[in-house]
Amino acid sequence: MNTSPANFRDKFIAIRSNKIFEIVVISIIIFSALVIGASTYDIDPKWLGLMKFLDIAITLFFLIEIIIRMIAEEKIRHFFRSAWNVFDFLIVTLSLIPIDESEMVLIARLLRIFRVLRLVSIIPELRLLMNALAKAIPRIGYVTLLMFIIFYIYGAVGSFFFEKINPVLWGDITISMLTLFRVATFEDWTDVMYETMVVFPFSWIFYLSFIFLTAFVFLNMMIGVVLDVMQKEHEAFDREQGEGEAGEVHWIKEHVKEIEKRMVRMENLLTEMSKNKTK
Amino acid sequence: MNTSPANFRDKFIAIRSNKIFEIVVISIIIFSALVIGASTYDIDPKWLGLMKFLDIAITLFFLIEIIIRMIAEEKIRHFFRSAWNVFDFLIVTLSLIPIDESEMVLIARLLRIFRVLRLVSIIPELRLLMNALAKAIPRIGYVTLLMFIIFYIYGAVGSFFFEKINPVLWGDITISMLTLFRVATFEDWTDVMYETMVVFPFSWIFYLSFIFLTAFVFLNMMIGVVLDVMQKEHEAFDREQGEGEAGEVHWIKEHVKEIEKRMVRMENLLTEMSKNKTK
Amino acid sequence: MNTSPANFRDKFIAIRSNKIFEIVVISIIIFSALVIGASTYDIDPKWLGLMKFLDIAITLFFLIEIIIRMIAEEKIRHFFRSAWNVFDFLIVTLSLIPIDESEMVLIARLLRIFRVLRLVSIIPELRLLMNALAKAIPRIGYVTLLMFIIFYIYGAVGSFFFEKINPVLWGDITISMLTLFRVATFEDWTDVMYETMVVFPFSWIFYLSFIFLTAFVFLNMMIGVVLDVMQKEHEAFDREQGEGEAGEVHWIKEHVKEIEKRMVRMENLLTEMSKNKTK
Amino acid sequence: MNTSPANFRDKFIAIRSNKIFEIVVISIIIFSALVIGASTYDIDPKWLGLMKFLDIAITLFFLIEIIIRMIAEEKIRHFFRSAWNVFDFLIVTLSLIPIDESEMVLIARLLRIFRVLRLVSIIPELRLLMNALAKAIPRIGYVTLLMFIIFYIYGAVGSFFFEKINPVLWGDITISMLTLFRVATFEDWTDVMYETMVVFPFSWIFYLSFIFLTAFVFLNMMIGVVLDVMQKEHEAFDREQGEGEAGEVHWIKEHVKEIEKRMVRMENLLTEMSKNKTK
Repeated sequence: MNTSPANFRDKFIAIRSNKIFEIVVISIIIFSALVIGASTYDIDPKWLGLMKFLDIAITLFFLIEIIIRMIAEEKIRHFFRSAWNVFDFLIVTLSLIPIDESEMVLIARLLRIFRVLRLVSIIPELRLLMNALAKAIPRIGYVTLLMFIIFYIYGAVGSFFFEKINPVLWGDITISMLTLFRVATFEDWTDVMYETMVVFPFSWIFYLSFIFLTAFVFLNMMIGVVLDVMQKEHEAFDREQGEGEAGEVHWIKEHVKEIEKRMVRMENLLTEMSKNKTK
Repeated sequence: MNTSPANFRDKFIAIRSNKIFEIVVISIIIFSALVIGASTYDIDPKWLGLMKFLDIAITLFFLIEIIIRMIAEEKIRHFFRSAWNVFDFLIVTLSLIPIDESEMVLIARLLRIFRVLRLVSIIPELRLLMNALAKAIPRIGYVTLLMFIIFYIYGAVGSFFFEKINPVLWGDITISMLTLFRVATFEDWTDVMYETMVVFPFSWIFYLSFIFLTAFVFLNMMIGVVLDVMQKEHEAFDREQGEGEAGEVHWIKEHVKEIEKRMVRMENLLTEMSKNKTK
Repeated sequence: MNTSPANFRDKFIAIRSNKIFEIVVISIIIFSALVIGASTYDIDPKWLGLMKFLDIAITLFFLIEIIIRMIAEEKIRHFFRSAWNVFDFLIVTLSLIPIDESEMVLIARLLRIFRVLRLVSIIPELRLLMNALAKAIPRIGYVTLLMFIIFYIYGAVGSFFFEKINPVLWGDITISMLTLFRVATFEDWTDVMYETMVVFPFSWIFYLSFIFLTAFVFLNMMIGVVLDVMQKEHEAFDREQGEGEAGEVHWIKEHVKEIEKRMVRMENLLTEMSKNKTK
Repeated sequence: MNTSPANFRDKFIAIRSNKIFEIVVISIIIFSALVIGASTYDIDPKWLGLMKFLDIAITLFFLIEIIIRMIAEEKIRHFFRSAWNVFDFLIVTLSLIPIDESEMVLIARLLRIFRVLRLVSIIPELRLLMNALAKAIPRIGYVTLLMFIIFYIYGAVGSFFFEKINPVLWGDITISMLTLFRVATFEDWTDVMYETMVVFPFSWIFYLSFIFLTAFVFLNMMIGVVLDVMQKEHEAFDREQGEGEAGEVHWIKEHVKEIEKRMVRMENLLTEMSKNKTK
């Protein structure tokens, strides 16, 4: 039996690529999600032992799984190149730390909940979806900045004018911006408006202009995202098809020009030859 | 008079394809819908007899109609190939079962209400619309899964942190997810937020990040659907047009290349011939 | 001085086409809108006389304007070919009927309000916009029917199950459908849901499935409208450009085929001639 | 050392174009925004002196910066050609006016808040975004007018019929239009409707038709904006690519026609020559 490192690694690569292994991992992740869900219900104390056992079993399984995937890499540091692997590693190692205090219990629970996110890193279609979402981020960045500036200015104005009317809603710029976010989601925004209209009868201009501005900028962001995604799909399609349709059409045009010139020369030659003959 | 089975079936096919028969069926379906609608009002007891009679008449009509359509098929099992036919058959046969108990009366009523859905299977434009909707489902599937994961994680986090604040909204993960759906629809979400902000002043991060994530994923789903439907329409258009515009442009390019090579050869031949002559 | 009918009509056509006349009409429509707006405020009784005078003046002006436009037509019935002209005629003639009773006063007021709609028929850009909106209607028709069927079924189900819980919201199918429209707009829909969940703990399925279905169908409608408008713009562009790009590409392909065949023939001829010569 | 005006201006142009100078300006704008934000909180009086000093320092910095940018221009009036420069100038000069009265303090504060908008004029990506938003305005103009007409008509109708029911919501046309805007945002619109349905049981037609109309017109506006932006991007792409793909295809078609005619002539010549030879 050959136990050389390379051969040893090959076995782990085989395990990692195995369809059944993948299904088992996905099942365990879903099972761990169900255990977390179940723990939010009031459970009979006699089941608590089982819950604790299941938690340890799942943690161990994830530890073994991540070790398999680490060994399957040529070098350990290759494993850490993927952000998702780093995330998996952190989730698994942090849940190994024994926790007793009450405050820390919440962090331990959060770690267990974040395990559900491993579904995204395991299922390829979800990973593709995340990449597609990530592509739209740069375009969204500046629009978000513009939106933040609008919120900041309206928040400052709202705080200066309306603080004395209702400090709960307009106490400082942070609270004002939260109130404005509420207005932007149309959540009881008229209650907010009617309150300030008692003191400032024209304050509806403040709210309506804010709603129009945010809706308008949000609309633009949406269109921007649609156009961006479409353009990227189009570019990808063009790259796949060689130089793309537009490029090919241009190529044809240039070559049709050449063909025409050549034909003029040929026709002249032929006419001359024909004349010579008939002479 | 010829009574052979084939001839016999032809008559039923003729009935089924008859425009008047179709209009009568649609009218009866609409009429049955109106009867159901009328039965939700408080009706004078003297009309109850008429209602019962109408119900029996409609049930019998649907029975006859479905038998006509079954006989019109070459083989009975061909009839059950269409999911809509199976649906029609179930609705009709289940309403034949005599029901007396009060609990079962509700089920009988539901069956009568579902008859309205037969409009969708009868009107071709609505069937087309349903097929178009069905096409968008695969793309939506994974996005829904992603959205469910987001809801599940936020639901678990919300249940762990906020259960003691308000068990009615955050009692267990199912209730938490329902509360989060409410937040996603902006329905009195600030009331939910202000309540938890008393204990956790920074819990607005929980709500805002959740709203941003769901809005973002939902936006992506919408774009995905738009792009998918567009691509499908485009492909259908291309298939209809032979190989499509892009394919034709590529074909032209390849052939223009061939033409050029051929012309170079021809021009060379001509020039040679012309030289020979002038020599 | 020539007073023949044709010449007489020409003068009225000149008035109708006059830019100043158009501006005056638009100004009077806007002025009449302002008078209507002003009449919703509590007005000092001494102004009532002026209001009455203005109303008569505006009515007379509209009467004169419509008579000018009617005379400007070759035949009176040509005038009634445009739906907007019929609308204008009705508004003007109905406001001529003297009204005294209190009930009829409201109708007279409505007629005066509808005059504002004349802006749409006068400003060409708004008329274009209305035509664009009208184009989307056929596509929307069947989707609306589908949506109505969904509302009707859920309305009947809601009325059967929830009538005893809250007859104000679920009394009969009409009220149920209004309640469902409220749910579809997310307006305090959780209050409606929590109320029924006391009796039927799983009634959230009813609401969530309804929200998903309506949102999904509405989404499809929106996409349908976008695609429809785009396709129409595209077709219009193609018609303008002759047969359109796709048609031209196909034309080119067919002709390149012909050119190739012809070139093969020509090259064969040339090769033969060249051989003959060298022989 | 050369102190001629041109050389003097070059130095200022160098400062203005300096990357570090730009970063400093952006930092100061962000810092001034933070100072404004901080001033909305309740601040210990001992910090008020620092706040006042910071305000003077920022005002002076902006004054120096704007003077640098003015000197860097060839002529002062060139500076005022850009609307953003005029805006910057107003903000800076108006904050120089010493203000003492309480009423004026609010205006001074507003001026300081508007300084945050200078971020938009400084960061090129945000300026591009604003230009893109500006492009969509003409198309939106007429749709907004149409929407305003709808609001005005419904506002007048609502005011006439519902004023006696609730003058707070339907007192005059301005208040009615504000109430209708609330209905359009679905904010507690059923409360408004149920109130009027007590007197006018069919007033739900008023609300539903209004919601459908505004949603429909808004939808059209959104589509219009999407199409407009797409068309503009498409045109820009075509301009960049010479005459555009469609133009090139048309050019190719015309020239293929010419080539065919020429080839027919050439083939005839060749066939004739070939016949002559074989004769």
